[in-house]
This record gives sequence, structure tokens and C-alpha cells, in this order.
Amino acid sequence: MDYTLYLVTDRGLSKGRSTLDIVQAAVRGGVTCVQLREKNCSAREFIAEAISVQSFLKEHRIPLIINDRLDIAQAIQADGVHLGQNDIPLKMARAIVKDSMLIGISAESLQDAVEAERYGADYIGVSPIYATATKSDTAPALGLKGLREIRKAVKIPLVGIGGLNRSNAAEVIRNGADGIAAVSAIVSADDPEKAAAELSEIIRQAVIL
Amino acid sequence: MDYTLYLVTDRGLSKGRSTLDIVQAAVRGGVTCVQLREKNCSAREFIAEAISVQSFLKEHRIPLIINDRLDIAQAIQADGVHLGQNDIPLKMARAIVKDSMLIGISAESLQDAVEAERYGADYIGVSPIYATATKSDTAPALGLKGLREIRKAVKIPLVGIGGLNRSNAAEVIRNGADGIAAVSAIVSADDPEKAAAELSEIIRQAVIL
Repeated sequence: MDYTLYLVTDRGLSKGRSTLDIVQAAVRGGVTCVQLREKNCSAREFIAEAISVQSFLKEHRIPLIINDRLDIAQAIQADGVHLGQNDIPLKMARAIVKDSMLIGISAESLQDAVEAERYGADYIGVSPIYATATKSDTAPALGLKGLREIRKAVKIPLVGIGGLNRSNAAEVIRNGADGIAAVSAIVSADDPEKAAAELSEIIRQAVIL
Repeated sequence: MDYTLYLVTDRGLSKGRSTLDIVQAAVRGGVTCVQLREKNCSAREFIAEAISVQSFLKEHRIPLIINDRLDIAQAIQADGVHLGQNDIPLKMARAIVKDSMLIGISAESLQDAVEAERYGADYIGVSPIYATATKSDTAPALGLKGLREIRKAVKIPLVGIGGLNRSNAAEVIRNGADGIAAVSAIVSADDPEKAAAELSEIIRQAVIL
């Protein structure tokens, strides 16, 4: 798995463009992983959208991760599911899917991260690194210090999320993240392909240096 | 499975009483099956409530069915899941759970019912029999005529739902339903136990006669 530039979709922030259009542009720009996040549609609509995105992503060998709905991830045989602290607990989710699917966990604290690794998460979304307007239900920002503490405590991949963009992506990588999750920095960009390409280059430089 | 008096919970209609309290009273009154329906809480809250209801129901050997969220049904190893026409399609759901779980399908038309039987539903919720204020997103009422048409076309158990109460439960049974689903008739009753007991007796009489 390559988590370096991890797109999280958000229909409400996409300025009227379809999620498929955003995903296609972002993949052309260089995202390495896509999480489909849909909070306000029926399961059937979510599945229809996921299938359309999945068939595009398969051609490009980019993994698809479904937010929250483990059953929808199973229904479409997604590559993974991403669970927050209010979603199905990791132990239950792992018992259901065994090793058939990646499970990512949003950790809002050092303790969350240590537990996620202990119970078999494949990666951790360290959330939020910075305060963000994208989500209203987030915990206090962890900052680079919180990220470094988590980096010291766990070995599995860390994806930073929350308020990340061109101005701070490099420092998040340098402070221990394996990847950057972008929401509005890509989905709200006038040119999502260009935004993804710029972030991709920033991350590449940060990894090298 | 005994679907004769099938309680569907609704927190918003329960007049401030907990779902567990309503379920306990309804079981004392004679409900034979409980569907837990939660539309406005997190998966983790839904699971916590489902586990508390489940441990009570197991003592009384009453099956627990989870509305909509197949993953939550799997997480707690519920007896079944109930899916509407906007939820995960039956074929996908059956492929996920195999025969480990009952699957009920809400049919809003004769065609829905025939398809549900063809693709392996364990029972059908015929919905709505009458117009109801409980749900705002329902199809036009099927009436007793619609119920009879479905009864002729499929062999699996039928549970009528939608606007059912003491005044009309008997005619729904006599027109082909194997059971009555009650929402507000029980959860909004001043005395849910008494309401369930009265409905149970009405159904018993209708089955005999």
C-alpha cells in the first residue's frame, strides 16, 4: 500500500462537481489512495457511486477505501474500510472481515493509536493534525508534537489528516507521517488535478530530503 | 421464526422512554420479534443499544433484527437484518452473510416482493399497508388489495407494516399477512405492555377465526 497522498472525498466541498470527476482528476494528479466518504446518501446511492469510482480506480491500480460503512465495503469488495472512534469498533470489524480487507482507524490521541495497532489496524489516520473546517466533530488538534509522539509509539503507517495543504504537507511528513490525507485541499481546488500534482511533488521532496 | 407480532423500535416516537424499556414492556406483552431501528445515532451507540436489547431478548428467546446496517447486525451477531429498497441490495447482502442471518426485505410493490423471494429473502415487510406518520419516505399505501396480490404471488412469510393498530390488525392477518409490525401502536402507547398484549390477542383471534 502507498498512502503517500491519500484523497478523502467530500461531496459537500466539491463545488458541485461529481465525486467521480474529482477522483479522476486527483488520480491524474498523483493521489495514491482514495477514501470515499458519504454521510448523507442512502446505502444504495453510496454503492452506485462506489462502483463507478472503483472501476476507474482499478484501471489505475489505486486502492479504494470506504468510510465508516463496513457493509458497503464488503458489498463492493473494496480494498479497505476506514473507521472512526464512533464507528464499529476495530475488534468487531476485524472479526467480520478477517484479513480480506484493510482496516484504517482514525486516532485522535496517542491512546487511540496504540490501541488501533494492538487490535490489528493496517494504518492509522492521525486526526486532526490541525484544526479544520471540513469536519465539525473532530477532537482537538494533535499538532506536530502529537504526531511525533504517535510515531514513536506505533510501527504501522500513519496518515496525517486535518487542515493539510501545500503549506504544511512537508512538515507533517518530516514529523513522522507516511502520508498526507487531503480533503478540501483537493476537492475544493479550482483544479483538483493540479492541486494533487503539487501536493504529490511536495511530499516527494519531503520524503527525499 | 414467529413473526406474528413484530415490534419495530423508534426512539423519536417513544416519548422519552428508552428503547430498552419499550422492548422489555413489549416482550412482556407478547411481541414475538424485535427490529431495532436507529437512524440518528453513531454506529457505536447503535451497537451499545443493540447489545443491551439483545441480552434481554436472548433470555426470552425473542429474535433480534437490525434495521438497515448489515455491518452492525454482523458485529453483534444478530438473528437478522431488515433492508429497505434504498439499503444494500438483497443479492449483495446475501453474498456477504450467506445463511448465517435472516434477511427481511421491505417490499413496496408486487414486483419488489417477487424479486425479494427470488433472491432469497427470509420474509417480506409489506410496506406500507396504510398511510402512516411514522415514516415520511414511504411509497403509496398498498392496502388490503395490494397485500392479497402479494400473498398470491409469494410463499415466504409476510409481515404487514404501516399504520397498523388494534383497529386494523385482524383484517391484515385475514388478508394474508403472517404477522403485524407495530411501531407507534406500541412505542407511543401510554402502556406499551398492555398495547402489545391487546394486539397479540387480536392477532391470535384473527388467526383462529
